[in-house]
Amino acid sequence: MTIQAAIGELSSLLGQRLVRSKSELAQHGASESHFALAPPDAVAYPETTEEVAGLVRICAAHRCPVVGWGTGTSLEGQAQAFQGGVCVDFTRMNRVLEVSQADMHVRVQPGVTREALNEELRATGLFFPVDPGANASLGGMASTRASGTTAVRYGTMRDNVMGLEVVTAAGEVIRTGTRARKSAAGYDLTALFVGAEGTLGLITELTLRLRGIPEAIAAAVCGFETTAAAVNCVIDTIQMGVPMARIELVDAETVRAVNAYAGMALPEKPHLLLEFHGSETGVAEQAETFGAIAADHGGARFDWATRAEDRNALWAVRHNAYHAIMALRPGARALITDICVPISRLAEAVETCRADLERAGIDGPILGHVGDGNFHAVLVFDPEDAGEKQKVIDAANRLVDLALSLGGTVTGEHGIGIGKLGYMEREHGPAWALMGRIKAALDPDGIMNPGKLVPPRN
Amino acid sequence: MTIQAAIGELSSLLGQRLVRSKSELAQHGASESHFALAPPDAVAYPETTEEVAGLVRICAAHRCPVVGWGTGTSLEGQAQAFQGGVCVDFTRMNRVLEVSQADMHVRVQPGVTREALNEELRATGLFFPVDPGANASLGGMASTRASGTTAVRYGTMRDNVMGLEVVTAAGEVIRTGTRARKSAAGYDLTALFVGAEGTLGLITELTLRLRGIPEAIAAAVCGFETTAAAVNCVIDTIQMGVPMARIELVDAETVRAVNAYAGMALPEKPHLLLEFHGSETGVAEQAETFGAIAADHGGARFDWATRAEDRNALWAVRHNAYHAIMALRPGARALITDICVPISRLAEAVETCRADLERAGIDGPILGHVGDGNFHAVLVFDPEDAGEKQKVIDAANRLVDLALSLGGTVTGEHGIGIGKLGYMEREHGPAWALMGRIKAALDPDGIMNPGKLVPPRN
Repeated sequence: MTIQAAIGELSSLLGQRLVRSKSELAQHGASESHFALAPPDAVAYPETTEEVAGLVRICAAHRCPVVGWGTGTSLEGQAQAFQGGVCVDFTRMNRVLEVSQADMHVRVQPGVTREALNEELRATGLFFPVDPGANASLGGMASTRASGTTAVRYGTMRDNVMGLEVVTAAGEVIRTGTRARKSAAGYDLTALFVGAEGTLGLITELTLRLRGIPEAIAAAVCGFETTAAAVNCVIDTIQMGVPMARIELVDAETVRAVNAYAGMALPEKPHLLLEFHGSETGVAEQAETFGAIAADHGGARFDWATRAEDRNALWAVRHNAYHAIMALRPGARALITDICVPISRLAEAVETCRADLERAGIDGPILGHVGDGNFHAVLVFDPEDAGEKQKVIDAANRLVDLALSLGGTVTGEHGIGIGKLGYMEREHGPAWALMGRIKAALDPDGIMNPGKLVPPRN
Repeated sequence: MTIQAAIGELSSLLGQRLVRSKSELAQHGASESHFALAPPDAVAYPETTEEVAGLVRICAAHRCPVVGWGTGTSLEGQAQAFQGGVCVDFTRMNRVLEVSQADMHVRVQPGVTREALNEELRATGLFFPVDPGANASLGGMASTRASGTTAVRYGTMRDNVMGLEVVTAAGEVIRTGTRARKSAAGYDLTALFVGAEGTLGLITELTLRLRGIPEAIAAAVCGFETTAAAVNCVIDTIQMGVPMARIELVDAETVRAVNAYAGMALPEKPHLLLEFHGSETGVAEQAETFGAIAADHGGARFDWATRAEDRNALWAVRHNAYHAIMALRPGARALITDICVPISRLAEAVETCRADLERAGIDGPILGHVGDGNFHAVLVFDPEDAGEKQKVIDAANRLVDLALSLGGTVTGEHGIGIGKLGYMEREHGPAWALMGRIKAALDPDGIMNPGKLVPPRN
């Protein structure tokens, strides 16, 4: 069997760092989502780009699937090995290679996590802003085009990856981008690999853009009577051009879950969680502008916190939300929707979603990055109850139709993997086939993360 | 002949809007650079996407080259028809299709120029920020990944195109992107077509991101004793995180040319031209911070102008610079270099460039978008003097080596066309061949702007 032949050669290349124990295979075959276990045939722990290239060349020769693995926190099954093969775990490629304070960028290996990077940067006055919640690896975040709470101000991985080193499907090492702030030199290969979910190659090094830690940071929380009022407040804030660093919605159901989970006592109504970055006067000006807009929408008098520990407590609410929701119903799983719509249609999208879930009798707390028009409904279901699971899938489908009808996208940040493969043609029309042609050109044997993102071949 | 067969069918499709007069062919075969005339066999003036698609289908059937044309202001021969064929002039596709004030975006046809767009937006409080100097078409700006004076704050076309309608090499109409602020749904085709210089398809519609016209705008000019002092002032300003809207260098030679051309009397030393955007207090804060940094570098006391007419006079200096330089030596042509380096290496790059040009005895005023690390040396030469022309080409080559040795790019914003084709392998190594594979996958017969950007097919 071709996979077995590859594994034999990989063992010679990697020795003890090619692992086939049941527990390792099971761990790398799981995900945080509702997909069935899909273990690889082996897990590889390369330590250098050259080892990754050698590994891919062996797999290419034997047409053995190659699936990248960062921390396993992707939500659409991107890192699961649905066709078996070799899982390439980048845990051992976790070095920060070079910090350039003067140019405000950093060169890292793909296994560095965002928290580890920011820890390493602490003394420099710089930070890496993209924050998807999970302490994901930077290679994984690039591969899934992650974003999160700060994208409203600092952009997504699309905007913060300057260049890559990639091992192609042929096992060749290429570099994309430069260390300059811009370039017009040919096709934007960096942007092509960011969000490709490992289907075109494996990222073995990233050059990332850093930002200066702001002189002043203030966080705030503001309650509203209705979700619509909170969302309309967001829309006005964005349209006024207030450069919010974070502006997140948690609806009443989410607040209820967080209160129960973390022993908090927030009023059980929709809240916006906010963060302002800038100079002292800039932050004060932003907070004042926001306060006036919030008051127009019936927002409660809002408090801001400038002490780091108060801010951290506030953001723990947001970061705990998913676990808090899941704790409400032990043993349940969740399908997390991820639609993103133009900001002008956000209130309509959230209200339609809420009404739809209520009509269908689904538990679906709503939270998300509303400054981007992106929100998640956490659709909780009993995995043993096929009827309930189908009800949830049907609701997610209706939400996708809603997003597309409003000019939006089926996924703001979680990506495609296998979870949203069925929506690609609806979102992209004939452009999806064009993605398939790019895939076929760069990975003619289809070994890189097969079965994901692009149309199945014939 | 296959081109002739295509032209016959195109005449039926477009009637009087397929033009073959000598003057039209000559006009569309020229460029603003030093390249030889390269006229197409015909110029088409489509009015709809469907006509563009029909046109490309005819050309595909006959393997007739198709070259897009906006305003003809690209600088690397991107719109010249070096292999003949049909030039598709988008002048008649110049409608602003839809302005969404709430979402701050606009949908336009590719022939709309940036000045026409901003004129149309005047009443909305919004503007499109990318400003390459020339009043280029938005389709052309996207195709060449244009940037210019405001990229330091607002980004390049890469950052400001949200989605595209494209006619592929097969004559199929596809759409990329959505109207949401972000998406993780598959390969970033928008980014692939932006900067592809028409080699993968023709852009027939663009959705562009708009910005709010700032509450306050101030412009300033500040003279320095040396170019190094001016450049070091820029580096400190960027590193301090001052959100400059524009920060441009003109060296002493450029000032001399502008003084002569426009009857001005600026001191003949290097100057920075600046613009600050923000709230009243934000602009005042930025100007104060910049003033302190400039003083540290021996900058002259700098004046700011908040009245629109004063600002416009100041920016006329920058926008006239190229014509002013060319007016110094009637009959001469220029090779304009476009390297872009990491900001930490900018002073070294500019000084090395200046010393090299002096050593070689070349007139080469330096100016540019120094906030991005991007600058132009305008290498003036007599086109009748083969020796002088070669001397200039050799100097440009040395500058490219310099940029690459400093971690930069051969082109910050002018693109590749044919002018920089010879540098692509040096910048990209094996990644250039990968660009060729993408080209072959999306344009297997090589009809879209042949001979540009990608490796020649043997």
